[in-house]
Amino acid sequence: MNDECHEADSLENLRARVNNFVAERDWAQFHTPKNLAMAMIVEAAEVVEHFQWDSPAESATLSDERKTEIGHELADTFVYLLRIAEVCGIDLIAAANDKIDLNAKKYPADRARGSNAKYTAYQDK
Amino acid sequence: MNDECHEADSLENLRARVNNFVAERDWAQFHTPKNLAMAMIVEAAEVVEHFQWDSPAESATLSDERKTEIGHELADTFVYLLRIAEVCGIDLIAAANDKIDLNAKKYPADRARGSNAKYTAYQDK
Amino acid sequence: MNDECHEADSLENLRARVNNFVAERDWAQFHTPKNLAMAMIVEAAEVVEHFQWDSPAESATLSDERKTEIGHELADTFVYLLRIAEVCGIDLIAAANDKIDLNAKKYPADRARGSNAKYTAYQDK
Amino acid sequence: MNDECHEADSLENLRARVNNFVAERDWAQFHTPKNLAMAMIVEAAEVVEHFQWDSPAESATLSDERKTEIGHELADTFVYLLRIAEVCGIDLIAAANDKIDLNAKKYPADRARGSNAKYTAYQDK
Repeated sequence: MNDECHEADSLENLRARVNNFVAERDWAQFHTPKNLAMAMIVEAAEVVEHFQWDSPAESATLSDERKTEIGHELADTFVYLLRIAEVCGIDLIAAANDKIDLNAKKYPADRARGSNAKYTAYQDK
Repeated sequence: MNDECHEADSLENLRARVNNFVAERDWAQFHTPKNLAMAMIVEAAEVVEHFQWDSPAESATLSDERKTEIGHELADTFVYLLRIAEVCGIDLIAAANDKIDLNAKKYPADRARGSNAKYTAYQDK
Repeated sequence: MNDECHEADSLENLRARVNNFVAERDWAQFHTPKNLAMAMIVEAAEVVEHFQWDSPAESATLSDERKTEIGHELADTFVYLLRIAEVCGIDLIAAANDKIDLNAKKYPADRARGSNAKYTAYQDK
Repeated sequence: MNDECHEADSLENLRARVNNFVAERDWAQFHTPKNLAMAMIVEAAEVVEHFQWDSPAESATLSDERKTEIGHELADTFVYLLRIAEVCGIDLIAAANDKIDLNAKKYPADRARGSNAKYTAYQDK
């Protein structure tokens, strides 16, 4: 990424904002990876809660109100994800690109394509 | 973000890559918000598993091997987070910035600063 | 429960067996409520993983092999649930009966009966 | 268990009470294993939330107020655990005893005893 564009990187901006938010409140002392992993799964569960009694079809047709609420739960999960990466010294974008490279080998497109059965077979450990 | 920089945005690039990965395997049919929320919390739990028996201090001093493993678990969580946002039509960066605005009002820096007790009082619902 | 029946209580027997298992391995030192809550959600996520790509109907028609696997994941969740109750000094049966009393008031049968819409309205916080 | 004692079995009584609660509200229609697994992990996350910012020592010294609250979260988790077992036709006590038999072979007491390092090595997959 060239320097002129660096400021425009949306994730970099968010990361800086989150870190600043934590620093202003002196909360880094509570942000061990262990505590943050707990906080992240609590937020992920709030996403799950939104969909727990929906049929799959209902979960795919959201009112604007639900969309806003779910956006906020995803945001909370995202913020703790960024914080774990931060305190562990992990580059989240690089880690995600590495993992996709690994997954591309594990699930070759021509073999993994399409059916539910095949998909399950690939996904299950 | 100006057009010249758009290509350089790290999250946009990752999002496109993830969507392409799914499309090549014809997996979108399984990616309802309900299913993806389940997949995301399963990955978040793999992050939790890494730290479950650690003391907070142990969780903060990671070997390179553990760091790589945790990076991959964070990556999996991140990929499903991106997919939920995608299928729900939610702009994750905008949602995160909105949520931080809300949190800044909910936890004013001068009141929320520092102590464990205060922090807990602010965090609990 | 009278004394003659006490030995026959299935949960009491299991609780004693779990506590003995932990004591024989000197694992109580790792079993803080915080650590056990993490371990329990990791096991709960393994239950979720079994069903993540299933349709609701598929999740309700299990092969014997899947039933055995799911039984083991439920068992792991249950064991950690028992351990949290144990180390916190909580009587799980009494707590469950108290909570059902509360829920019976919160969701009166005549009002909460039946429709998905009503159900969701009652369940959401 | 002999017939005279059957009524006194605490888990059997609770199981019957939970099933009755669901039947009175006609909620069984929503209780697929998939939905119940989601509901259970949402409740497990509420247990995690109680401890997320605690030190391990703080999590082990609970006020009566916290103990009651945690008891209710454990109760909710337990009720959904019972419901999953019910709709899947799994005998939870038998499954737990089977799993403990397996774990006793996997973690022999003389080898698994005591140290954090050994414990982690045994626990990690």
